This record gives sequence, C-alpha cells and structure tokens, in this order.
Amino acid sequence: MTPIDLNADLGEGFGRWRLTDDEQLLSVVTSANVACGFHAGDAATMRRVCELAAERGVRIGAQVSYRDLAGFGRRAMDVPPGELTAEVAYQIGALEVFARAAGSRVAYVKPHGALYNRVVHDEEQAAAVVDGVLLAGAGLPVLGLPSSRFLKTAERAGLPVVAEAFADRAYTGEGTLVPRSQEGAVIAEADAVVERSLGLACSGEVVSLSGERVPVRARSLCLHGDTPGAVGLARRVRARLESAGVRVEAFA
Amino acid sequence: MTPIDLNADLGEGFGRWRLTDDEQLLSVVTSANVACGFHAGDAATMRRVCELAAERGVRIGAQVSYRDLAGFGRRAMDVPPGELTAEVAYQIGALEVFARAAGSRVAYVKPHGALYNRVVHDEEQAAAVVDGVLLAGAGLPVLGLPSSRFLKTAERAGLPVVAEAFADRAYTGEGTLVPRSQEGAVIAEADAVVERSLGLACSGEVVSLSGERVPVRARSLCLHGDTPGAVGLARRVRARLESAGVRVEAFA
Amino acid sequence: MTPIDLNADLGEGFGRWRLTDDEQLLSVVTSANVACGFHAGDAATMRRVCELAAERGVRIGAQVSYRDLAGFGRRAMDVPPGELTAEVAYQIGALEVFARAAGSRVAYVKPHGALYNRVVHDEEQAAAVVDGVLLAGAGLPVLGLPSSRFLKTAERAGLPVVAEAFADRAYTGEGTLVPRSQEGAVIAEADAVVERSLGLACSGEVVSLSGERVPVRARSLCLHGDTPGAVGLARRVRARLESAGVRVEAFA
Amino acid sequence: MTPIDLNADLGEGFGRWRLTDDEQLLSVVTSANVACGFHAGDAATMRRVCELAAERGVRIGAQVSYRDLAGFGRRAMDVPPGELTAEVAYQIGALEVFARAAGSRVAYVKPHGALYNRVVHDEEQAAAVVDGVLLAGAGLPVLGLPSSRFLKTAERAGLPVVAEAFADRAYTGEGTLVPRSQEGAVIAEADAVVERSLGLACSGEVVSLSGERVPVRARSLCLHGDTPGAVGLARRVRARLESAGVRVEAFA
Repeated sequence: MTPIDLNADLGEGFGRWRLTDDEQLLSVVTSANVACGFHAGDAATMRRVCELAAERGVRIGAQVSYRDLAGFGRRAMDVPPGELTAEVAYQIGALEVFARAAGSRVAYVKPHGALYNRVVHDEEQAAAVVDGVLLAGAGLPVLGLPSSRFLKTAERAGLPVVAEAFADRAYTGEGTLVPRSQEGAVIAEADAVVERSLGLACSGEVVSLSGERVPVRARSLCLHGDTPGAVGLARRVRARLESAGVRVEAFA
Repeated sequence: MTPIDLNADLGEGFGRWRLTDDEQLLSVVTSANVACGFHAGDAATMRRVCELAAERGVRIGAQVSYRDLAGFGRRAMDVPPGELTAEVAYQIGALEVFARAAGSRVAYVKPHGALYNRVVHDEEQAAAVVDGVLLAGAGLPVLGLPSSRFLKTAERAGLPVVAEAFADRAYTGEGTLVPRSQEGAVIAEADAVVERSLGLACSGEVVSLSGERVPVRARSLCLHGDTPGAVGLARRVRARLESAGVRVEAFA
Repeated sequence: MTPIDLNADLGEGFGRWRLTDDEQLLSVVTSANVACGFHAGDAATMRRVCELAAERGVRIGAQVSYRDLAGFGRRAMDVPPGELTAEVAYQIGALEVFARAAGSRVAYVKPHGALYNRVVHDEEQAAAVVDGVLLAGAGLPVLGLPSSRFLKTAERAGLPVVAEAFADRAYTGEGTLVPRSQEGAVIAEADAVVERSLGLACSGEVVSLSGERVPVRARSLCLHGDTPGAVGLARRVRARLESAGVRVEAFA
Repeated sequence: MTPIDLNADLGEGFGRWRLTDDEQLLSVVTSANVACGFHAGDAATMRRVCELAAERGVRIGAQVSYRDLAGFGRRAMDVPPGELTAEVAYQIGALEVFARAAGSRVAYVKPHGALYNRVVHDEEQAAAVVDGVLLAGAGLPVLGLPSSRFLKTAERAGLPVVAEAFADRAYTGEGTLVPRSQEGAVIAEADAVVERSLGLACSGEVVSLSGERVPVRARSLCLHGDTPGAVGLARRVRARLESAGVRVEAFA
C-alpha cells in the first residue's frame, strides 16, 4: 500500500488576525501549505510557521493565491498571464527565505481558493501558474486535483505532480468534486469524514453523492484547518489511518 | 584610484503607474536598487527590471522598505523589530526569484526612503534590518550612509558594508547630509552635481554647505532616477567620471 | 439639439504616482469621474480634485471600482454581490466627504474598468452595483453604455440613467463597442476622433467598423485622460463641438 | 450623578477574519467605535455593524486609523498632516454611508491604536485629525483622553469633546495612563475592573498604581472587545453600574 500524505492550509492569519491553529495542526499533517502574503500570511507568521514545520519535520509548500486580502483569495480574478506568473514566483521566493532560514526549503506549490478552482478548467491561468513555478526554479512538485488542467499542464512542463483528495467533500460519479453550491457538497459528519479518508487512502475509492463507488487517485489528503473542531478531526483521521496500517508520510 | 559604483532606485512603478525610466537608467548605472513590492514594484515589473539588469551586467540589489504603498515608503513607521526583520527578509526572497531566473542574483540590500533615514540613527530598527538580511542568508552586503548606525550594526554582524554618497545633496561640516527641510539641502544645478560627483569619486571630498572641504568616504554614488532630466544627468555624471579616468564599476 | 456632456476619469494617481493631468482636464470636461481609492485615488488627491472641480463648476461623479490597486481595477473579479454592494457604497461615501467640503456633492456614479465592462452583461453584478448606489442614498444617476444590463437594472430601480458614447472606440453594426482585442477597436487618429464626437453629439450617429451609419444614443461623451496628448485632443473635441453650435453641458 | 457612556471597538475583522463579537457587544455598549477600513473593517462588515447598532439604538462612531492593515493600526506613522487630514475625512465619509442607510448617522470620531496614542502628545497630528473631522463637516464630537493634545485642539476648533477612561488600565498619580510597557499597566482581574468602573463613573476617581486616589474626568468608559471573556466582563461592568444607580447612556 502506498503511503498517504496529509496536507492542510496553515499560517492563514494576517497581522492581528488568526485563523488556523498552526501549532496543533503541525503535529498532525505531513505537508503544510503556507500562505504567502497574497490572501493571508504576514511575513512574521510565515517565518514562525516555517520554523515550527521544520522542527516537526513537516514539509513546507507555497500556498500561492490571487492578490486579494479583502476576499481571502476566494474571488476569481482575470489576472493577465504574465502578471499571474510573476505573482506566483514572487510568493514562492518570499516563502523560500523563511523555509531556508529554518533549515528546510519550499518543497511544493499548491494554489489557494479561487485560483485553485480556476486552474482546474482554465488553460491560460493553469499555464501561467505553471510558468510561475518554473520561473521560481528547482522544478517544484505541484499539488492539485487529479484530472485538472493544472496537473496536466504541469506534467507536460516536466514538473512532478501530486494528486490530492478531500475526505470532507462529496464526489460525482465521474470522480470530480460536487460544487459547493450544490446540496450535500460538504460532509460535515466527522465519522463519515474519517471513514472516507480511510477509503481514499486504502482502496483509492470514495462513495459518490449518488451512491456508487468511484476511483479517486490521490497521494495526499487535504484536511481543513479553519473550522472549529478541525484539529480534533485531523487527529482522528490520522489515528484511523495509522491504526489501519496506512503509512502517513509526505510525498517524495 | 578605487573605482566608483553608480546606484539608482529602479522599478519604482506599481501596476499601471510608472515612475523611473528603468531601461535608460540601466544603461548608465552599475547597481540597480530594485523595489520589492512594499513601497513600489509589482511582481511583473520586478521580473522585467531583473531581466534588463542581468542582460546589461548591472548588479541587482533589494531596495527594502516599510509596507506603505500609499506613502511610497516615505513615512517613518514604528514597526516592531520582529516584524521588520521578517518583512525585510520577505522582500529579499521575493526579488531573489527574479534575479535568479534572469541568471543573476540579489547582490546587496539597501533600505528605501523613511527606513533608510530611520536606520541612520535608530539602533533598534537598524538591528532589525540587519537581522532581516542575515535571515535571508548569503551574508549580503548592505549599502548606506558611511557613519550610520545601520552600517555599524551590519559590520558588527559580519556583513560587508558599502558606503555611499549623494552628489545632489548638501553636506554639513561633519560630513553628514543637510536635512531636506533646510534650505540648500538639494543641489538642483546639473553642472554642480557633475563636479561634486567627480570630487567624491576622485578625492573623496565634497564642499560643505558652509564652504569647507570635508572628507566623505564612498564606494558608491547614488543617482536619482525619478526626476525629469534624471537620465540625462546620470549620463553626464558617468561620462565626466570616465573622462577623468575614474573606473565606474560595481563594488565586489 | 440636446446639449452634450463631456466626462473623463480623473484623480487616477495614487500616493507618489500620477496618471491624469487633472488640472488641465478640468478646464475641458463638464463631468469628472473621480477615482475613489479602490483602483486609484488616495484621499489627498480626491480632496484636491474635488476642490478643483468645484471651483470650475465641473460636476463630480464617483468612479467606483473593484478593490484592485495592483491591477488598476482592470481585472474582472467574482466579488459576491453583498460585498460588491457595500464596496460601491463605501467609495461613494468617501468621495462625498470631499465633494461636500468643496461646496459641491457627488452627482452621479460610473463604474470603472473591469467593473464597467462586467456590468454590461453580468446581471448579478449590475444589480449589486445598483444596490450600492441605492444604499448610498440620494438616488444618484448612473453613467454607462446605452444598452447595458447596468443601465437597464438602474432604470428599473428608479435611478436616472445617462448613456455615454466613446468617440475613440469603434462600434459594431448593432451599436455596441468593438472589443479591444479586435483590430481597429481603438481610433488613434485625432481628426477622426474629433469628427466622430461631432457626429455622436449632433446626429446621434457613428460610422461602424464595417462602414454603415448606426444610431448611438448618448447624453455624454467619454474622453480619455491617461494618454499622451489627451488634454490637447479633449480641447479640440470641445472646441469643434462648440464651433458647430453644440452646447457642452453636464447632464441634469 | 451624570450618566456614563460605554464604548467599545467593533467591526474589527477584515474579510475572512473576525476579531470582535459585534453582536454581543452591541447588547452592552451605548457607543460603537466602528472600524472604517484602514486598520480593520471591510465594507460589508461596516454595513452589518451599522445595521445592528441602529437596531439596538447604539450610537455609531468612526474609529479612524492610520492606513495599516498589516499592523492593525498599531504602528505609529509619520503621516504628513495634509494626508492624515484627508485620510480621516475619507474614513468618516465611508462610514457615514452605512450609518445613514441604517437610519442612523456617524455621531462621533475616535482615533484608533497608534494614532490614538500619538495625538495625546503630537500637536501636528492632533491638529491634522481635528482638521479631518472638520473637513467631514457636521462638527462631530471627538472621543479621547481628558488631558490630551487631541481634545485640547478639538475644543479650540469648536468641536464637542468627550473624555474617556479605561477601567482595565492603571493610572499614574497625575491621572494619566501607565504605559503598556510598564509592569502593572493592564488590570487583568475582572473584579477589579468592575470596581474601578464604578469608581470612575460614580466618584470620578481611580486608585493609581502607587495607591493614591486620583481624579479622572470621564463621560465615557472604554471596554475592550477583543479579548476572551470580553463580552462577559462588559456585561458585568454594565450590570454593576446599573445596580449602583448609574445611568448608562450615550453622551449627547
């Protein structure tokens, strides 16, 4: 059985504001998607999260976003490709300083929020993000949805790609995410989330909204860190996986 | 005779706005202080300026600033040291991506505007900036006023320091800058600027506001790029220096 | 013959950066679309432009935008309606302070850039902007394209609507603007712009890209202020209109 | 016995981030210092807080700040007076829209954070803030420390001034606040805060850090809303005041 990575968004405060319980989540996940200042994440927070992650051996990833603090990066934006490419590289470079200073390095890139959703389908923006990763050098792996335009473009460009799944999101019969606007899109019941995690990690399958088993290829599971009870649920997911003999481990 | 470096602030536009004639200035200066996004400098501009600088063999420096787009970094701010350190490192890291992508690297750090003036005297902020440079790794040289707290702190911390002078600013009898608020602080007359450049580069001396010759140690001359006629004046300064046999060359 | 209003975007600098020649343009136009801080326009600039406009008897309008300084409001954003409504009202209120202090008032609202283009077709955002205008009270007139969703929604909501035309943009046979991405979309030749202004003001007609005369209803002509020669061209347009007996006058 | 006003900072979230429990605090205080977007407070939050305040009959005040989201307005800034004046007016105007739309109006102005502290002593900035209030029209009352430069300047300019006191802050023998950097500056013990509130409201006195009773003139008490237990403590303060026969009522 291949090991499974657990990733979560971290460092999503800004200045006076806190959102994610970084310290606790870093004791559960194996990969930390660190906000880089465009949707959240001031410089001092980025530094602290990188230090904590490095101490605990958690992998550091750049969670790149549209420049949109007011909207927390959740509002799709028609950013021209050249600007988007430069903005992605800028964020990776800024985070790299803190990762290096902590004795680690930026090990992957994951788009955030509206950008994440946009590059599932939008060829131009997907290519712009990939160009930003290439510009930042080092051929960093990218994290995204298995059949997304983003992963395909990254793969064609020679970047390692890592597919992720969501234990707390409903899937269609085609193995894609049910849009949040649709009823039942988010799975709130903790036991269900834990069991789905196990199914995704062990058999690479999930039960779709309409009830059939569908294959979902994923080397990483995304855990949400910004809800009450997030840390407790994350711990339960990890414990269940480990008790079932699944190796919880960052991707190579 | 030691060679002299010519530095200027570049890339000081933001999005739709332009300020400095980057392309022309890059054909004159040997060191480019590139804005890193906190007082000016969007990511796409940073990328372009780094590419142009690398092509022309101009050295790239990080012009770090307070986070203050509305005030162009010209408003002193009481930023707590830990935040300032992280913000300085953030800016250096962001620029490093574009310098590397262009086949060059960030070769020095120069504070901008109000931060530049503050670290002349403010021990705490001077130390915070130095810590930011150290955090960014690589032991980068810093550029500043000869007798500033900043250069002293940097030197003590083991960083190479480079003293600079201003050919268009009046000096006191003690070899410090006459404050801008005082009459005669800025030298507008182009011929005078050219001759003072020569004096600074050749004899390490300048005539003070009260008329005596004072020694001013400087390995670099700062040329201003944001005024009308800036490019023309910069060209004249360089031509005069070269015709007098001064080697115009970036510091090591 | 109905009089014609001349409007232009003003105050589109930010802090250290300037874009529009506000002083000169205010001696030509009858309506000033003042940037309100979201795509451009710091508070001090807003104040100054309102004072100049009030002195010259130029009408003050709120040029409302997406919150996007880095993109100058030119990047379409999926802002949720409730947020957009509040952001529009916020901008109007901020400008109103300076208009009142100058002895005038905000007399109309015009969306800027990507928001302007979006509300031509996007029903949800058009309604959100209209709601923002209603929230700001006073039933302000709105300025936009004649057959846009925006003007229709505003009209239904009981707001006065003012149709505008562009003398420097090509029109289709249906009387809509040729998209900027298409060749020939922008008319660069000054003489042509002047003549088209006259046609629009006098006969309510313009020659389309394919050569036929099409009716274009417009109570206001939009002049561009951010290009070299903008002021000179604006003066020529106004002089030509007046010499032909057209009354140049703000809408009621 | 004169009645006492209870004021608290509200709406201090931004976009995705929340800080203050606006709904609960609005059931306790009589005056709401609403953040206006410069240190916190997005437009949608401002609208919502104004609606809730108007419903509950709570007075709305503009909590004006330096433009500093990253520092939550807690970093003193050397903003030139002209800019500061315009920025203060801008914030008041923006809030006024939402207060009016809710059937209320902006009834006073209170500086926030570093600006609050700065105008205690800094004559130039105190005057700039007062000019901003005057520019916004309506001669709004200002809220501040009794013997501050700010209240004196406002009074001289003809604005109504309202002195406030802090039940959870230690006072010197001269009746000024003990700086936060000093030990004992903040009173954490809830019972003590409640009793001090009563002393301030009933006898206009407080026991100083060194143990003597000092007079502190205050028409309003500032309650803090951004700490755990803030709402509970606020309720206790109000209940204690009322049970002692103090009328809790906004200033006129």
